[in-house]
Amino acid sequence: MEQQPGYILLIDCPDEKGLVHHISGVLYRLGLNIIGNQEFVEHEEDRFFMRTSFRGAIQPDEVVEELKALLPAGANISLRQHQPKNIVLLVTREQHCLAELLVRNQFRELNANILAVVGNHPDLGRFTHQFGINFHHVPHEGISREQHEAHILEVVSRYQPEYLVLAKYMRILSPEFVARFPNRIINIHHSFLPAFIGASPYRQAYERGVKIIGATAHIVNNDLDEGPIIVQNVIPVDHTYSVNDMIRTGKDVEKIALARALQLVFDDKVTVNGNKTIIFD
Amino acid sequence: MEQQPGYILLIDCPDEKGLVHHISGVLYRLGLNIIGNQEFVEHEEDRFFMRTSFRGAIQPDEVVEELKALLPAGANISLRQHQPKNIVLLVTREQHCLAELLVRNQFRELNANILAVVGNHPDLGRFTHQFGINFHHVPHEGISREQHEAHILEVVSRYQPEYLVLAKYMRILSPEFVARFPNRIINIHHSFLPAFIGASPYRQAYERGVKIIGATAHIVNNDLDEGPIIVQNVIPVDHTYSVNDMIRTGKDVEKIALARALQLVFDDKVTVNGNKTIIFD
Amino acid sequence: MEQQPGYILLIDCPDEKGLVHHISGVLYRLGLNIIGNQEFVEHEEDRFFMRTSFRGAIQPDEVVEELKALLPAGANISLRQHQPKNIVLLVTREQHCLAELLVRNQFRELNANILAVVGNHPDLGRFTHQFGINFHHVPHEGISREQHEAHILEVVSRYQPEYLVLAKYMRILSPEFVARFPNRIINIHHSFLPAFIGASPYRQAYERGVKIIGATAHIVNNDLDEGPIIVQNVIPVDHTYSVNDMIRTGKDVEKIALARALQLVFDDKVTVNGNKTIIFD
Amino acid sequence: MEQQPGYILLIDCPDEKGLVHHISGVLYRLGLNIIGNQEFVEHEEDRFFMRTSFRGAIQPDEVVEELKALLPAGANISLRQHQPKNIVLLVTREQHCLAELLVRNQFRELNANILAVVGNHPDLGRFTHQFGINFHHVPHEGISREQHEAHILEVVSRYQPEYLVLAKYMRILSPEFVARFPNRIINIHHSFLPAFIGASPYRQAYERGVKIIGATAHIVNNDLDEGPIIVQNVIPVDHTYSVNDMIRTGKDVEKIALARALQLVFDDKVTVNGNKTIIFD
Repeated sequence: MEQQPGYILLIDCPDEKGLVHHISGVLYRLGLNIIGNQEFVEHEEDRFFMRTSFRGAIQPDEVVEELKALLPAGANISLRQHQPKNIVLLVTREQHCLAELLVRNQFRELNANILAVVGNHPDLGRFTHQFGINFHHVPHEGISREQHEAHILEVVSRYQPEYLVLAKYMRILSPEFVARFPNRIINIHHSFLPAFIGASPYRQAYERGVKIIGATAHIVNNDLDEGPIIVQNVIPVDHTYSVNDMIRTGKDVEKIALARALQLVFDDKVTVNGNKTIIFD
Repeated sequence: MEQQPGYILLIDCPDEKGLVHHISGVLYRLGLNIIGNQEFVEHEEDRFFMRTSFRGAIQPDEVVEELKALLPAGANISLRQHQPKNIVLLVTREQHCLAELLVRNQFRELNANILAVVGNHPDLGRFTHQFGINFHHVPHEGISREQHEAHILEVVSRYQPEYLVLAKYMRILSPEFVARFPNRIINIHHSFLPAFIGASPYRQAYERGVKIIGATAHIVNNDLDEGPIIVQNVIPVDHTYSVNDMIRTGKDVEKIALARALQLVFDDKVTVNGNKTIIFD
Repeated sequence: MEQQPGYILLIDCPDEKGLVHHISGVLYRLGLNIIGNQEFVEHEEDRFFMRTSFRGAIQPDEVVEELKALLPAGANISLRQHQPKNIVLLVTREQHCLAELLVRNQFRELNANILAVVGNHPDLGRFTHQFGINFHHVPHEGISREQHEAHILEVVSRYQPEYLVLAKYMRILSPEFVARFPNRIINIHHSFLPAFIGASPYRQAYERGVKIIGATAHIVNNDLDEGPIIVQNVIPVDHTYSVNDMIRTGKDVEKIALARALQLVFDDKVTVNGNKTIIFD
Repeated sequence: MEQQPGYILLIDCPDEKGLVHHISGVLYRLGLNIIGNQEFVEHEEDRFFMRTSFRGAIQPDEVVEELKALLPAGANISLRQHQPKNIVLLVTREQHCLAELLVRNQFRELNANILAVVGNHPDLGRFTHQFGINFHHVPHEGISREQHEAHILEVVSRYQPEYLVLAKYMRILSPEFVARFPNRIINIHHSFLPAFIGASPYRQAYERGVKIIGATAHIVNNDLDEGPIIVQNVIPVDHTYSVNDMIRTGKDVEKIALARALQLVFDDKVTVNGNKTIIFD
């Protein structure tokens, strides 16, 4: 027997009595096979969040309409078929996060399709090609940031990706660029945010003499290093670690944090709530 | 305004379509204020688990009857008012877990009332008394295990505790004793179970040369060290650790694991499913 | 046979060839029983650090003189008998760190003697007395910070402690006060420094939506929250944690971080190097 | 200026007074530039361990002879130039550990040269070739274990590797095979040993309801899953994890544990002491 398509329903709206009962009623009357169901109420702002995964033959637009009719004003409803997301990666020179994603992609463990990799340096082109993935070198030297971003946008647009992943892309994106992909750019920052915002976080960590270093995967918004955090990951260090030891050790933490964050995002488990995330894991 | 009483509803039953809708319907019609709601379906055995916390003026027996009527056969329904549990501790000679619980109890951070402490050695009597808690020395020397457990039972029975907590109680309880407190005895085992079952786990860990040690808080059933696990906690060690260093380091891991497990149990967040736990955290 | 007294030798000096050979030569000729020996060279500034623990019958002053003669200029030499340190605790209202230390002290697991507890609020007096330890309430209301610190100093001076431990003491100490106890004041800060410096770090962490919270035990110097870090400890959190949940969860992390830091300090395993620590663990 | 060659000196011998002084004397008289120095005495058996890294122009054989003359009987002395180790990998079907090592190898971050990959299944051949590394399919079907191992040995022997790495090689090696590479075979076991020895550890972990899963990188000796442990790594799980979720989550833990273990081994930081390791990190 052929399996019915799977869907993920994400709802957030002002909290009120009976939401679970009413929403589950819609799904029950459609005769769907519920796989999982989770709710959360953010009590500081009385907002209700829900994630339901189910299988069934539905007309998604009709389900959304029916839900909209019974939910309070200000409700966000997302109903997506469960399938791999199309993504493009941006990189600079470091390979560890790129490699992590290329390997998972090749073995279909990423829940995404890497359509292409864009680098502002050419260094990772050959490596990307080993995996049979397109690499585009979009240099930034000698042109303005606006021009560079326009070039990137031109390349990215050809692929129509659902998400951009900054896999150690070491340039700051302009608010205008970010605004084109709202909540759809994922970055890995090489520190335990909000510690060590900005450049050379491992040098900063070394100078401060911390005993734990970390990495933060987050959604990019207009403020540098300030977007909603998805995953943080840490590892102990001690006084014997040079800056380079921290950088090397940090790579493992970074790539695993990024990979876990992407798994959550691509499984539609992440809802953005202001500058925070609600994660139904 | 006076706050309405809080309740925790725990349900588990064979999975079927519409459970969330039907259960939430009962609560909705009662006009309750839902604080939190979580469901889980164990897919290997198709069993549904749910925890709901709410406030409201209800007749608990009537609610349970109404739920029973609409749930499939084999449903377990627990509806308890949210209030501190009454507990008795069993100890031997080590103080770290006992101290952790006595301090939390004194500052009302345990969500329980420690009614008494029972020790098979007298060592911890004075310390317990510092906290104004009764201590009963029930010696085991020169008598059979049955006799000893009968003595313990006699003392424990005076307090009618809802839970017994083995806070480093170093004697094995008989199945007969355990059967009197089904899923109501919590133990802290000083290893990362199922590694190092049995006596002297730190000596075993030292001999094996492990690089991480741990502790396991679990519900006691008939098989020693085999009950459902609630919390596990670990900490790295290295070759410089003697057995005594491991024991000392392990104490911190043990007491925090036990305290976290008790917090989960006393908040009615733990459901036992065979020899496993479902934890709605 | 009576055991010979144990000593800890801590040396730091500019690095040069032969240091280990020359220092170990002094100890060898004295016929000492070396228990452990560790060296470290900080390569950014070419500074040599060494910790040796040994047993033997020595004239400490003579050993220090002999070492000074063969070490380069700028050497720090500390030779201390291995014995419990005398300490005074400063507290405010929260009991978890205080309780952790009082319990360890009572069972001789702190490698220190708590001589007294000083609180700027009276709340923890009764609890401290349960352990048979002096408590001094030194109120700060209605007087200047200078006056308050003078009162504290007056009380502390009676005990001649080797270390002051800020066990959740919630007031900022002046540089003048700190200067009287150079590298001898240990603080627990309730965040993963340098994230969330300043007031209400858990509120800050909540607002930022972090996925891990932490605590930092450090030596106090003139700059608030800027002293050399000894231990950091973290724990994962998620979107379901309210500020109060973070505070409660953080308490376990704080008290264990502080207790570990004190263990390292009281075992003379910590050397301060600028605003960092070298820890021979 | 050309840099002098780097060496790692590893010594272990019965403990006696003056060892550090005498050994450091040899190095001092040679005018070497000591980069790092660490000692450890295992007190249960009174055995001394030392690791020294240095630069200098030496005749290694002469240095070893000179050290041998002054060390007690039963001393092991290893003096190796610091250079990448030559290794061969054995794999079966899973790619995650293999990929981790191939990527690090390509970017010279492994401190080793992967000479070839041998698989008892052909699945990973194409992937290995993407990295320009030889892959040998040595099937085990229809032949005895002895024959299969003879085939593997024939292939491996062509490369004269210093170490064999079992990167999720799912067959048990015979004692005879292992004896040919004493302390030179590194394995990654997909459980937190000694928990879940043997087959299907994730299924075992799932059945037991553990709350933490782990992986263990160890040196292979005659007893399956019983060799000296180098690195252990863990990650929390909960009741929502299916066996497959544990397997997927475990992969990250496995590959990082293996990579860290290899870094330690290839940097000559690991000394085997019976069935344990001394690690000078």
